Amino acid sequence: MIRAQPFRHPLTVYYEDTDAAGVVYYANYLKFMERARTEWLAALGWPLAQVEREFSRVFVVTHVDIAFLHPARLNDRLDATVEVVDRGASRLVLAQEISRADRPLTRARVTLACLDRDRWRPARLPAPLVAAMENTQ
Amino acid sequence: MIRAQPFRHPLTVYYEDTDAAGVVYYANYLKFMERARTEWLAALGWPLAQVEREFSRVFVVTHVDIAFLHPARLNDRLDATVEVVDRGASRLVLAQEISRADRPLTRARVTLACLDRDRWRPARLPAPLVAAMENTQ
Amino acid sequence: MIRAQPFRHPLTVYYEDTDAAGVVYYANYLKFMERARTEWLAALGWPLAQVEREFSRVFVVTHVDIAFLHPARLNDRLDATVEVVDRGASRLVLAQEISRADRPLTRARVTLACLDRDRWRPARLPAPLVAAMENTQ
Amino acid sequence: MIRAQPFRHPLTVYYEDTDAAGVVYYANYLKFMERARTEWLAALGWPLAQVEREFSRVFVVTHVDIAFLHPARLNDRLDATVEVVDRGASRLVLAQEISRADRPLTRARVTLACLDRDRWRPARLPAPLVAAMENTQ
Repeated sequence: MIRAQPFRHPLTVYYEDTDAAGVVYYANYLKFMERARTEWLAALGWPLAQVEREFSRVFVVTHVDIAFLHPARLNDRLDATVEVVDRGASRLVLAQEISRADRPLTRARVTLACLDRDRWRPARLPAPLVAAMENTQ
Repeated sequence: MIRAQPFRHPLTVYYEDTDAAGVVYYANYLKFMERARTEWLAALGWPLAQVEREFSRVFVVTHVDIAFLHPARLNDRLDATVEVVDRGASRLVLAQEISRADRPLTRARVTLACLDRDRWRPARLPAPLVAAMENTQ
Repeated sequence: MIRAQPFRHPLTVYYEDTDAAGVVYYANYLKFMERARTEWLAALGWPLAQVEREFSRVFVVTHVDIAFLHPARLNDRLDATVEVVDRGASRLVLAQEISRADRPLTRARVTLACLDRDRWRPARLPAPLVAAMENTQ
Repeated sequence: MIRAQPFRHPLTVYYEDTDAAGVVYYANYLKFMERARTEWLAALGWPLAQVEREFSRVFVVTHVDIAFLHPARLNDRLDATVEVVDRGASRLVLAQEISRADRPLTRARVTLACLDRDRWRPARLPAPLVAAMENTQ
């Protein structure tokens, strides 16, 4: 069985991302990971805006477990990856990594709940989105 | 004529506010100034949420002219001030300053438009809010 | 045995903290938690700057496990708490919570490494800082 | 005389950039503009890191005059432009714009001081950087 590579989104570290310790501020890795998730859904053919418009579904992060292994620095060119590691009826668990030249700097497990946008309650992942995820794995 | 002191809001510089140059990142002074405006309205007796609820009015910044004179640094205790310098029917111009121990670090002139929240169009400043501003000058 | 309350730092949610979903952006809870840690050390008598100056020690976050239970919203008055739950020679594990009117909104376990500032290597927690932590528990 | 187009850097609006009013938070346009300046220098062949390494020069923003004309929103694809409008011995004035589909949303004039990195004092713009700017106008 051939398994696809995780989705990969390139990033550049600007001054806004760093702090006085000379490294990327720890909360900002979560921003990088969210950018990668957004681009991943768009690459699957289901941008967030379309998921909301067609299915009245939004995603919220309910849990993050993140290890900070090595610091990223100003001007670094990074990659942020996204990979589905578990899936429930209304829940996605993603493995995400920020790396520089294939060296992992942070590694996270991010749990997302799929919500009905109007009732703000858990709701099934839209079937076409699930199908798109399966086709790339 | 006795003129009141400008409104003053105390701030602390945390890592999140700084960048790899070891100083507060330039965009973050605008955050500090917005915190001070929010607390100023609350101190006048008209918190933003109440202005919106009672008058359907919101404020948007339409123009900022800001000079960065000296850098603020990690752990600095700062003050952000607010002073009305001009007022139109649906417009406020504020002088704002960020200082450390009375030394000005940044100085801005901030123009706000008062909008009707539903039509997103210029709308008169609520009279009770104007009265509250005049009482403190 | 009487056990002290966790350290508590009050916070206000401003526009800068929120996102287009109308709630606090998930990464920003980590900013709130870091502000609380900074103020907690200062309240113990050991502000970060002094720890660095006297002992050449800095803290870096190496791991965060955070659950997002309920959203915080614009203008909310929140509390961020800090409590030591585990301690190694050069490592601290903190329980941190963001709550509104005693209702927990996010709950995290944050692991910090104590590093020698010059060699950027794990280094023992300064004894006076450990003593100060023990006195408040 | 043929005049070159301003440098143009593409951007996407993510949740991190927006606020509870549903639009891009005003301070974040300054982040977008700084990203564009960084990429502009890199495109000229003089990335910030190289300017600092070879000439011991850094840039700091000393003044911004910015008008917020129309709001940008979640998922917008934007362009940020950079154009030199004035130049002194140790000073650059840039016109910068954020636009969506050629409609300007914010427009700024940004003044940068060129500093000697060690003495943190105004210092001449490096001649090769000036030459690179002139070649593109």
